[in-house]
Amino acid sequence: MDMLKKLKKEVCEANLALVKHGLVVFTWGNVSAIDREKELVVIKPSGLTYKGMKPDDMTVVNLKGEIVEGSYRPSSDTPTHIELYKKFDQLGAIAHTHSVYATGWAQTGMKIPVLGTTHADYFYGDIPCTRSMSKEEIEGQYEKETGKVIVEAFKNINPMHIPAVIVHNHGPFTWGKNTFEAVHNSVVLEQIAKMAFITKSITSESKMNPYLTEKHFKRKHGKDSYYGQ
Amino acid sequence: MDMLKKLKKEVCEANLALVKHGLVVFTWGNVSAIDREKELVVIKPSGLTYKGMKPDDMTVVNLKGEIVEGSYRPSSDTPTHIELYKKFDQLGAIAHTHSVYATGWAQTGMKIPVLGTTHADYFYGDIPCTRSMSKEEIEGQYEKETGKVIVEAFKNINPMHIPAVIVHNHGPFTWGKNTFEAVHNSVVLEQIAKMAFITKSITSESKMNPYLTEKHFKRKHGKDSYYGQ
Amino acid sequence: MDMLKKLKKEVCEANLALVKHGLVVFTWGNVSAIDREKELVVIKPSGLTYKGMKPDDMTVVNLKGEIVEGSYRPSSDTPTHIELYKKFDQLGAIAHTHSVYATGWAQTGMKIPVLGTTHADYFYGDIPCTRSMSKEEIEGQYEKETGKVIVEAFKNINPMHIPAVIVHNHGPFTWGKNTFEAVHNSVVLEQIAKMAFITKSITSESKMNPYLTEKHFKRKHGKDSYYGQ
Amino acid sequence: MDMLKKLKKEVCEANLALVKHGLVVFTWGNVSAIDREKELVVIKPSGLTYKGMKPDDMTVVNLKGEIVEGSYRPSSDTPTHIELYKKFDQLGAIAHTHSVYATGWAQTGMKIPVLGTTHADYFYGDIPCTRSMSKEEIEGQYEKETGKVIVEAFKNINPMHIPAVIVHNHGPFTWGKNTFEAVHNSVVLEQIAKMAFITKSITSESKMNPYLTEKHFKRKHGKDSYYGQ
Repeated sequence: MDMLKKLKKEVCEANLALVKHGLVVFTWGNVSAIDREKELVVIKPSGLTYKGMKPDDMTVVNLKGEIVEGSYRPSSDTPTHIELYKKFDQLGAIAHTHSVYATGWAQTGMKIPVLGTTHADYFYGDIPCTRSMSKEEIEGQYEKETGKVIVEAFKNINPMHIPAVIVHNHGPFTWGKNTFEAVHNSVVLEQIAKMAFITKSITSESKMNPYLTEKHFKRKHGKDSYYGQ
Repeated sequence: MDMLKKLKKEVCEANLALVKHGLVVFTWGNVSAIDREKELVVIKPSGLTYKGMKPDDMTVVNLKGEIVEGSYRPSSDTPTHIELYKKFDQLGAIAHTHSVYATGWAQTGMKIPVLGTTHADYFYGDIPCTRSMSKEEIEGQYEKETGKVIVEAFKNINPMHIPAVIVHNHGPFTWGKNTFEAVHNSVVLEQIAKMAFITKSITSESKMNPYLTEKHFKRKHGKDSYYGQ
Repeated sequence: MDMLKKLKKEVCEANLALVKHGLVVFTWGNVSAIDREKELVVIKPSGLTYKGMKPDDMTVVNLKGEIVEGSYRPSSDTPTHIELYKKFDQLGAIAHTHSVYATGWAQTGMKIPVLGTTHADYFYGDIPCTRSMSKEEIEGQYEKETGKVIVEAFKNINPMHIPAVIVHNHGPFTWGKNTFEAVHNSVVLEQIAKMAFITKSITSESKMNPYLTEKHFKRKHGKDSYYGQ
Repeated sequence: MDMLKKLKKEVCEANLALVKHGLVVFTWGNVSAIDREKELVVIKPSGLTYKGMKPDDMTVVNLKGEIVEGSYRPSSDTPTHIELYKKFDQLGAIAHTHSVYATGWAQTGMKIPVLGTTHADYFYGDIPCTRSMSKEEIEGQYEKETGKVIVEAFKNINPMHIPAVIVHNHGPFTWGKNTFEAVHNSVVLEQIAKMAFITKSITSESKMNPYLTEKHFKRKHGKDSYYGQ
């Protein structure tokens, strides 16, 4: 099976996985993946219902956003995905949802603070929230500009250390080396967003032990990791 | 299949869809649709259980609220629906539920503020909340008066731009060109009511970027829309 | 089928209905019903698991709490049920759960305030919360005393108008003419407890329009009711 | 069937029970049990997915943490479990999850206060939260040190009277005489953590009647208990 065919299958299954994990209502989500050699991105079509979705329904675009294969228009968020693939060169896949707790945080304009080891097992610090976009950015190439404010939020952060962002007044994007990781991180993000909501509702005083963040992230990631098989 | 028979089927299925989407407990909801040519409204019977509900169980009333077809009394909310059909002439269907988050907001007496793009994709601004009703309105033709305070809340709002309202101390009504849209908007309203609850529980400071409201609503609605296929 | 056999079947099914409605974890709930002629109460056995529960497993006690039929000890809450049957002579059945939102309110020591029509459709005012019990009451005939503080909370309330109570630091009891109503009211109570939690989390300012309470309760109950078929 | 084989079956089923009860996402949980005679601990392998998990996949370690049987590395939390088995000699099994409400409380650094009888039926007082760990503890034998701060939190508490703890910035551990109790207590802890969150969101004023804690715990536990069959 050639690479593109394989990616279409993966992207289709990843989109359906978002639904199965309860992160998506109606058509509010999309997953893409990139073939780095061919510089082609496979993404869910815009507004397509998940029921009966097939690998061949996926749209293939190049890094200019032009359709290369597929009968449907790509997700309207495609330029955001492309911007991230261009600037974050380790990304293999991206997922976007409007899951309620992560979106609830995105609507506050605040970072999701690291408050526990569940968070630190996957994300090496607070989940950044993008700055408010200007009138010009929104009225111009809005979806591309959304990608640019995400990149801006990672000026001092390694996107593979914190593979998630919340876009102000919008919702979460997550990513990883492949579609499995991108979807996995969307599920984790929703869980930690809910936990942080619970913690903050009980008290505004809580804060993370910084040594725990260090320990837990390193325990699962990098050369000295010892979690798993 | 004649128009009325088709509407009965649609209205019956739409009522069952409310249950499937988890918006309705017991008999707490109703959907209606209107045949604009014949000026007849098809609506769920009052207090009828959803289990085993059939298209022929639906009640047909004229715009005076008189039963034209059907063996059951119509929903006690029928005069509210009729009032909306009379004043908002683009409405093809109306849904009413007591879904918990939208009802939780209705009980506050406050608008559901637009705080993100999930909201703006469907509703062009805050979801209005009706004013408190007077003793006379409640003791008089209560259900009709409920329709009138809804209409009053839309004095400066196009009901097709914000196809939802929360009735103070009561709950949500949503609508659309047809039963699909009316039910769809009930599901969306519950999601954004939950998201706004989460956001407001974390901080009272959040607010929407007004250019995003403009952008997202126009991206999905009207002549310059480009979302979907 | 004789009356007692019928009651055993009803009580067994009602206990299982609590589980189906998601109100009960493990064995945390019980339903009873009374045969007013024979002055016998049928109730779930203490600590019995719901899985595989049969009508013949139900325990029958007289109004002194003595076992008349059945191989199991009755629910430890039996004296509470008996006290209510003795003092509230219109009760045909009682349900008790530890459903999370109603119990969350019971733990506050506050009434569940009427804030909307969902509440007023079933309960004619705030859901009372019992006073804190004394050392003597708790160390004495605790379960019977629990019944007595419930009765005390209804000194100026008709228990058929507000067929529910929350016991301070404990949880809800609901009742009705039969097991169907008792279970139905447990489900409604949990819904309105959740809605009131949402409303109060958004704002502490909300309050009910008293004419709506009057209207909605009377619309569904009593001689001038017009809801349903 | 020899004891170890029996324990493997029990531990495997207990791990799967955590998933069935909705307490575990992905691989975020583990259950262990101890054979006190042989001084061997059976525990879930690190990072192993629950789907298709079999009794023979379980890892057996001695009290030094050395693998005695099994093809997989044990859970990375194994030294925490071992520390508890060594110091709390009545423990037969331990469960660890990241269930959202209990973890939300763990992130506050506060005890889960006893606020009602649901809590007191199982736990004889507040659920302790461990102190913040030092840099040295975290960078040293972190998982063993986690066990030690748990033991420290029980200096004046009988661990069989309060068979649960929340580890600061981490999450809950529960235990019991066997895997059934350990898992059961994880489910109960999540319920009472949710109830306490609801209560505290409504009012910060609530507090427990201490005589009720006494009564309810004693009603279910110890020589004068009379709950159940």
